[in-house]
Amino acid sequence: MSRRGNVEDVRTIACVGAGTIGGGWAAYFLARGYTVKVWDPSPEAGERLTRLIDNAWPALRELDLLDGADKDAWTVHTDLAEAVEGVDFVQESAPEDLELKRRLFADLDSVCAPDVVIASSTSGYSMTEMATEVTGGDRFVVGHPFNPPYLIPLVEVVGGEKTAPEAVTWAADFYTFIGKSVIRMDREVPGFIANRLQEALWREALHMIDNGEATVDQIDRSITDGPGLRWPFHGPMLTFHLAGGEGGMAHMLDHFGPSLKSPWTRLTAPELTEQLRNATVDGCQTASGERSHRDLVLERDAGIVALRKLTQSLTTKAPAQSDSVA
Amino acid sequence: MSRRGNVEDVRTIACVGAGTIGGGWAAYFLARGYTVKVWDPSPEAGERLTRLIDNAWPALRELDLLDGADKDAWTVHTDLAEAVEGVDFVQESAPEDLELKRRLFADLDSVCAPDVVIASSTSGYSMTEMATEVTGGDRFVVGHPFNPPYLIPLVEVVGGEKTAPEAVTWAADFYTFIGKSVIRMDREVPGFIANRLQEALWREALHMIDNGEATVDQIDRSITDGPGLRWPFHGPMLTFHLAGGEGGMAHMLDHFGPSLKSPWTRLTAPELTEQLRNATVDGCQTASGERSHRDLVLERDAGIVALRKLTQSLTTKAPAQSDSVA
Repeated sequence: MSRRGNVEDVRTIACVGAGTIGGGWAAYFLARGYTVKVWDPSPEAGERLTRLIDNAWPALRELDLLDGADKDAWTVHTDLAEAVEGVDFVQESAPEDLELKRRLFADLDSVCAPDVVIASSTSGYSMTEMATEVTGGDRFVVGHPFNPPYLIPLVEVVGGEKTAPEAVTWAADFYTFIGKSVIRMDREVPGFIANRLQEALWREALHMIDNGEATVDQIDRSITDGPGLRWPFHGPMLTFHLAGGEGGMAHMLDHFGPSLKSPWTRLTAPELTEQLRNATVDGCQTASGERSHRDLVLERDAGIVALRKLTQSLTTKAPAQSDSVA
Repeated sequence: MSRRGNVEDVRTIACVGAGTIGGGWAAYFLARGYTVKVWDPSPEAGERLTRLIDNAWPALRELDLLDGADKDAWTVHTDLAEAVEGVDFVQESAPEDLELKRRLFADLDSVCAPDVVIASSTSGYSMTEMATEVTGGDRFVVGHPFNPPYLIPLVEVVGGEKTAPEAVTWAADFYTFIGKSVIRMDREVPGFIANRLQEALWREALHMIDNGEATVDQIDRSITDGPGLRWPFHGPMLTFHLAGGEGGMAHMLDHFGPSLKSPWTRLTAPELTEQLRNATVDGCQTASGERSHRDLVLERDAGIVALRKLTQSLTTKAPAQSDSVA
């Protein structure tokens, strides 16, 4: 672990690919005071990145900008070896093309200094699938951000079969150090966690449009004016925990378990085994911590009030109105 | 339509059932200046409702309270005929028990003045299933709120087979008049719209817990620190429209359509027919209105910035940190 060293010692980062995601990472790294070396074969890469950083900077200034961060501390390179020379970390965000990623990872492995961790922004492939052309592969990690990476805190971190656990730990620690909310997964799951959840909702929505059960506007409004008003501060599990009243998730599962099978979505529910029941209930109890049911209700209400005031001031949409599928 | 009259002329409302949902409706109706007559057979109903209204009132004062609203303008009745006497609208929120609802609706039909619209808060049953014991049934409508009804704007409105379209229109108009965001559905769909979407996400989450792929905390954080930061102001459809860059939803579906079949959730995707593609694209174009791609991006970023500042000030949770399934 010579060069890899402490996450505090990182000074220079290579962003491999500077599209929406790679460019978004570059903006974030700059805001956190790093020097960024960008590899992108496109002749317009520099111009596009300038625009992206210019657009992102005001938002970064509001939240995560460090004193002394230099908006212009980046260079673009078309030569990969040049781009990764002297860097302490690599964030790869090339297009989602498996063959391209495989070749790119082999190239990266041969030009990067030993022990530099190489993280991929992929949302579609596992590291085991992507690192097939790499001889060692123990330093290749998935670090999956959410768009835009300069604003959304979530990063899902997971290794492949050949990845060294220390490389996963290093990446998780580094992202945490720079202010991200890290979910470290101990196994590769297609779509990771957030995309699986998001996709389930999205597919149900497509089915409803397909069957004429709801319009695009109705689907969006059913979220923005409904459960979406809780999800930024209470996730889906804690939301259901609260829906169980003072009995919480245990009450929900023990009493409404059977209705889990009702046809409320096209996604079939799992069997509610004792083990699943307990894992879910325990998780909610841990999440609640010292907060009583009443504390959570008051927190939820304060959150919704603040959120509704916020969305009223933000949105340009027309006031609430009746509509129809017709 | 004699008594039903204009939605502006409603003065008194009966809340049938005063649990979490019925009591939440009562609090909202009081805040909007109505007199509320509560029917609830429980001897503790009055005390429980006092507590609920006391808890809700500060939040109502922040958002929807009308001048002159009287927090104490309610009475509790154990006799149904007495409770609905002289009221202009009935909101039923009895427990989710089909037989109970069927009997209750027959009773309500016999004691309510003709033409008074009777709306049910049910989340689980269709009006066609519930109104079987009612002779006419043309005034029975579903008006499905979200918890807590005194804060969440969404109300899904739909009739049953026997419901008169004018009764559905009246209910939709009334909810809109009192400040709700109404989604009027033209057919009965189990779980309506928001619950179908919410349930798909919830079931995917249960599957992940069941398979040891994610913990409760990871699931909640993957939403609160990820897509949940967009959903209060851009619903899932507009979020994907934006993810398509300047090409929007058309680009998304035309280019990433095939990956719709990738195993990112246990919910199978629909066939991406030309018709589904066009309905989805057109809906997003309508939703975007005059807003350009750049307008939407700036709106999204301003929203996330404000939202993250808000959640930082609201939440009592620990700062972002690395974790593991172990």
